[in-house]
Amino acid sequence: MGKIIQCVPNFSEGQDQGTVDKIVEPLKNQEGFKLVGVEPDKDYNRTVVTLLGDGEAMLEPLLKFVEKARDLIDMNKQSGEHPRMGAVDVIPFIPIREATMEDCARLANSLGKRIAEKLAIPIFLYAEAAQTPKRKRLPAIRKGEFEGMKDKIQEETWAPDFGKPAIHPTAGATAVGARLPLIAYNIDLETDDLDIAKKIARAIRGSSGGFKHVQAGPVYLDERGHVQVTMNILNYKQNPIYRIIETVKMEAARYHVNVPSSEIVGLVPQDAVERSLKYYFAVENKPYSDGTPLEVMTKYARTHLLFRDFDVLKIIEANIDIP
Amino acid sequence: MGKIIQCVPNFSEGQDQGTVDKIVEPLKNQEGFKLVGVEPDKDYNRTVVTLLGDGEAMLEPLLKFVEKARDLIDMNKQSGEHPRMGAVDVIPFIPIREATMEDCARLANSLGKRIAEKLAIPIFLYAEAAQTPKRKRLPAIRKGEFEGMKDKIQEETWAPDFGKPAIHPTAGATAVGARLPLIAYNIDLETDDLDIAKKIARAIRGSSGGFKHVQAGPVYLDERGHVQVTMNILNYKQNPIYRIIETVKMEAARYHVNVPSSEIVGLVPQDAVERSLKYYFAVENKPYSDGTPLEVMTKYARTHLLFRDFDVLKIIEANIDIP
Repeated sequence: MGKIIQCVPNFSEGQDQGTVDKIVEPLKNQEGFKLVGVEPDKDYNRTVVTLLGDGEAMLEPLLKFVEKARDLIDMNKQSGEHPRMGAVDVIPFIPIREATMEDCARLANSLGKRIAEKLAIPIFLYAEAAQTPKRKRLPAIRKGEFEGMKDKIQEETWAPDFGKPAIHPTAGATAVGARLPLIAYNIDLETDDLDIAKKIARAIRGSSGGFKHVQAGPVYLDERGHVQVTMNILNYKQNPIYRIIETVKMEAARYHVNVPSSEIVGLVPQDAVERSLKYYFAVENKPYSDGTPLEVMTKYARTHLLFRDFDVLKIIEANIDIP
Repeated sequence: MGKIIQCVPNFSEGQDQGTVDKIVEPLKNQEGFKLVGVEPDKDYNRTVVTLLGDGEAMLEPLLKFVEKARDLIDMNKQSGEHPRMGAVDVIPFIPIREATMEDCARLANSLGKRIAEKLAIPIFLYAEAAQTPKRKRLPAIRKGEFEGMKDKIQEETWAPDFGKPAIHPTAGATAVGARLPLIAYNIDLETDDLDIAKKIARAIRGSSGGFKHVQAGPVYLDERGHVQVTMNILNYKQNPIYRIIETVKMEAARYHVNVPSSEIVGLVPQDAVERSLKYYFAVENKPYSDGTPLEVMTKYARTHLLFRDFDVLKIIEANIDIP
């Protein structure tokens, strides 16, 4: 088995299952890669898609997928809890096995160019594919969101990397990039007080003095009726999951708020789960075997890390056929 | 009452009480400021002195204090757990009330110049008094310590800010600077395994992904027979004491190591203690009154923050006569 690349497109529809199905259709049953995850979120009104396999093989199907999203989503009418600037909001390529960041940046360039030329959607290259330091961080590019992008993209410093300096009238703009694997992780709080989630997010995130590789914010989940701290963990080795959820529990204790569960959005590396399980096993003075099967690990993660809606296929390695 | 400045000279003798007494003698019973703390540490072989009051009034007595240390300490023979480069290792000025950082930088310049001229000890200006970004961080200046400074100071980039590019043969070199108040804080671990302290320090400190404003390292206390995580907290508002000690307890749990106590070296702002006490009171669902007297607060801090050897005069505000 050769290079394995992960691609995690996010698009701005998470409520209408029929539309979600139509948009991801071009990514199903393709040669060279697998569609391993489609996770719509009603509150975010956003769907996270996960592909694994040969990056080159993903390009044409991705182009058709973006075309579907462009034709089926009207950003003028779309709203949800998650910040967004386009029908397909962001498409990162991630090196998983034997692939390099350069491979991924090349894929981002290639896909970005085709989207701009064939679908008339302006493209920003971000993260490791960024052409300027200002475009490294997605939040900086996306600031102002779809509504603000109309004017922003006409400013000289915000001219897109591919395409004309004008948003697509219904599909907005898309960021395409290359980055290391990150963990999209949300911790549920048993309260509807958004202010508590805000204070806890501030305690843990790097930008306000917390854990360096954690980007976190508060969100209210209308559908579920509670708040959560939503985050990206950019380096799970230095900022392991257990330390983050334990710190969130510590902070929640002062508000007498329970932390009943947490969730991984998209996939998580086996190593990230195992590192954290080893913490709990050590605390409980139980041996943890390095050969623990992924299925068993999944069960442990539900118990110790409080992962809800978590099955074995959420672990990256479970989706790779080992020859 | 006018400007209040804090000055916290550290000198490299913490074992011979007679010598410590002689060195601090010139700082006792002076007009315009108070000697509020003298804390020798046998394992560190270092004493932390705390002065509070009018900064200008401190200058002449400080000069005499440095002279005593120069004459009574021979760095060629000195050794201890704490990194050091001079008989008087570092002298920071800190704005406490109505004083500015500029006031403190001016005092640092004035004192540094006099020490170099009158006592033939080369001076590095550091932190907010630094003349180049490379000299902002004390550890960068001190790297190589007394033993390495002999050669280092002759390099062009490490020429001292005052004095000749040569160490004093027995007193080494001294850093003089201006900075915001920081909290020197140590957390005791009930083990003699330095590796555990090292791992925990790595988990909490900013430089390896932990709390941004925490600088931490491991140390073995021979005298006491256990290890500790020794740290500076550079911003207690973003990185409050309770969050740090609770995280240390969380990490220590995996090694089944108890955290029996912690200690403040030098002084701590009232606000820093109160912020953390409020956390524990909230967790326990007890009201905390903002008018709590300093004496009572001191008792609470011993119970909740596990401060050992802590009395009311360790709180900065208890040393200032409020008119």
